[in-house]
Amino acid sequence: MPLKVGRGAEAPPFLVMDVISAANRRAAALPPGAPGILRMEVGQPGTGAPRGAAEAAIRALSAGAPMGYTEAFGRPSLRARIARHYAERYGAAVPEARVAVTVGASGAFPLAFLAAFDPGDAVAMAAPFYPPYANILTALGMRPLLLPCGPETRWQPTVAMLEALDPRPAGLILASPCNPAGTMLPPAEFAAIAAWCERAGIRLVSDEIYHGLTYGTVPETTAAAVSASAIVVNSFSKYFSMTGWRIGWLVLPEDLVRPVECLAQNLFISAPHVAQVAAEAAFDCGEELEANIARYRRARAGLLQALPRAGFDRLSPADGAFYLWADVGHLTNDSVAFCQRMLAEAGIAATPGVDFDRERGHRFLRFSYCGPEADMAEAPRRLAAWLGRPGPEGA
Amino acid sequence: MPLKVGRGAEAPPFLVMDVISAANRRAAALPPGAPGILRMEVGQPGTGAPRGAAEAAIRALSAGAPMGYTEAFGRPSLRARIARHYAERYGAAVPEARVAVTVGASGAFPLAFLAAFDPGDAVAMAAPFYPPYANILTALGMRPLLLPCGPETRWQPTVAMLEALDPRPAGLILASPCNPAGTMLPPAEFAAIAAWCERAGIRLVSDEIYHGLTYGTVPETTAAAVSASAIVVNSFSKYFSMTGWRIGWLVLPEDLVRPVECLAQNLFISAPHVAQVAAEAAFDCGEELEANIARYRRARAGLLQALPRAGFDRLSPADGAFYLWADVGHLTNDSVAFCQRMLAEAGIAATPGVDFDRERGHRFLRFSYCGPEADMAEAPRRLAAWLGRPGPEGA
Repeated sequence: MPLKVGRGAEAPPFLVMDVISAANRRAAALPPGAPGILRMEVGQPGTGAPRGAAEAAIRALSAGAPMGYTEAFGRPSLRARIARHYAERYGAAVPEARVAVTVGASGAFPLAFLAAFDPGDAVAMAAPFYPPYANILTALGMRPLLLPCGPETRWQPTVAMLEALDPRPAGLILASPCNPAGTMLPPAEFAAIAAWCERAGIRLVSDEIYHGLTYGTVPETTAAAVSASAIVVNSFSKYFSMTGWRIGWLVLPEDLVRPVECLAQNLFISAPHVAQVAAEAAFDCGEELEANIARYRRARAGLLQALPRAGFDRLSPADGAFYLWADVGHLTNDSVAFCQRMLAEAGIAATPGVDFDRERGHRFLRFSYCGPEADMAEAPRRLAAWLGRPGPEGA
Repeated sequence: MPLKVGRGAEAPPFLVMDVISAANRRAAALPPGAPGILRMEVGQPGTGAPRGAAEAAIRALSAGAPMGYTEAFGRPSLRARIARHYAERYGAAVPEARVAVTVGASGAFPLAFLAAFDPGDAVAMAAPFYPPYANILTALGMRPLLLPCGPETRWQPTVAMLEALDPRPAGLILASPCNPAGTMLPPAEFAAIAAWCERAGIRLVSDEIYHGLTYGTVPETTAAAVSASAIVVNSFSKYFSMTGWRIGWLVLPEDLVRPVECLAQNLFISAPHVAQVAAEAAFDCGEELEANIARYRRARAGLLQALPRAGFDRLSPADGAFYLWADVGHLTNDSVAFCQRMLAEAGIAATPGVDFDRERGHRFLRFSYCGPEADMAEAPRRLAAWLGRPGPEGA
């Protein structure tokens, strides 16, 4: 007889993965000598791990280190190094006992959600949002509660929005910088939201995966410095450029340390050992990492100047991360079809907004600017030609 | 105000992790020159990845491969190699499209459970069992349904046990070889259970993580060869000796391929890239891997001969894996206290049975024999002396 399929089978795809596949197919089908596809859909740095991190992994492997399971919360030396990072970068005292090394931020979210929330609980987040927030919550039987945000609040939630929620949710996910809008909460607003959450008994989950990738418009705030009850999620994937190593971390409030440890023992056993060795060394690779950011900074400045003249003049402020959230409502009301045409006709891959905002995303798209610098410079020229605009060199 | 903590916070610890910590502390506290702790609690090979696997990782890292995210289901070449493994080892045709590379078997279970079952669904399994089965199901809102098994059925479920279930569960987890009993289902019984599940509309999840670690008593059966609807879970952690690399795989039935892909995109993005490179090379390291198994085989034979004379004469048949499930009901009715005493007085760490069977585990313990061969030979001597028995050299 046909077998049951669970409701988890209804999880929507993370659309950008399908866009990546389409761009790969298109690139493979190009005739020799044709101009290549400009990849502005990907959310991962084109650079690999910093050299010192890869070399630490090579050294450990060459020495024959057995690379067995580590403790569920990770190698003590890495946990201590992460704790020190909070002192050095933010002036925040985070005891290493509250640091848990995880299988990327992806592995951190289920631990955080399961420890803090129950099935049926509502967890609020700004829309547009990183799709796995909602898809992981849904898979765990929890309910994403979307707070539609726009340029007037920098695409971020406000205390007033939260005050207006009735009934109140069990939790709130904040991301500053956020994906896809690349915007940040000013420190006073971040702290006000964190304080309001504590007063209201709402668990704050602060996704800080894009910390370090900021451009001087808004200062960074870590929830670890302003809330004793918040859960901080971070990762070595973005600033440290180590996506495929699958290594991230949590800073946990005291009451969730042991629950998350038990969950991690059962759900993950441990994060990848060799990645933990590499990640610890990555903290000493500041020069190389800052060079990556300088590259993003140049690409960002170029795009902010040239995209408006190419027809994309409604852009998010681009405070951080490496994303531009573009309102293309004057060009299309079907961002999926628009992105497909852009890929086919201009050779530029970008992610349709519906991946991040099912309600309003049909008139938005996300440009990522972490790709090769020359490609980021070429993109506005192609877009201008495609849309029949004067382009960057024009008036 | 104090914040809510989710029911997930009630997840019991995976006790063996605490036993490992206790053994580590005891080993660190030993005076210089004292005999060391014999580690029979760990479920991981003391050997690292085979040399060829580690070297493939070193080569890729040395060449500067960026190690970004892979596709959610893994590198195509690894998926193809796993598919070939089914042809070579089992004579089973498994298209690579049905192979999903995962973050260990730990990462495979939530994908399998979410795709196949709903919150509230009951999933049956033999008891004693691998604790994370139940703890992951519980974290996802599903219900473990325990089938108490004993030596009369090789600690494995039977069709008769399944027939007797009313109402019927949504799924069944089989493990052959299993953990902790190390026993296997004979092929005809395995096939009969798989066929019964298909007829009854019950999703079979076959945990094959200990395949390859068998000793000639019972032939191996893969569910991929006898069921089109079963989900197969496997891993590079045990036979391939790559625990800390966090790399495993699923063989999926057709109806769950796309659902699991969407779940994997959201929950994991991808398995660790460098581990995928190493794992593919591990398939070419047969000689080294077979030498590991020869070592387990010798340790197993020695223990099966010597443990009974040391007072542990009620052992599971030890068909596979590297575990002995010992009935110590004649020695204690508190296996936790017994293991603590054994560690303190005999310097031998083993896992109390309550980790694997909350009802009957107080009179069982699990010995693991994947540790150093000399330690495995020494263990019965110490146990005999501790219990005042004649020991291996006695009558």
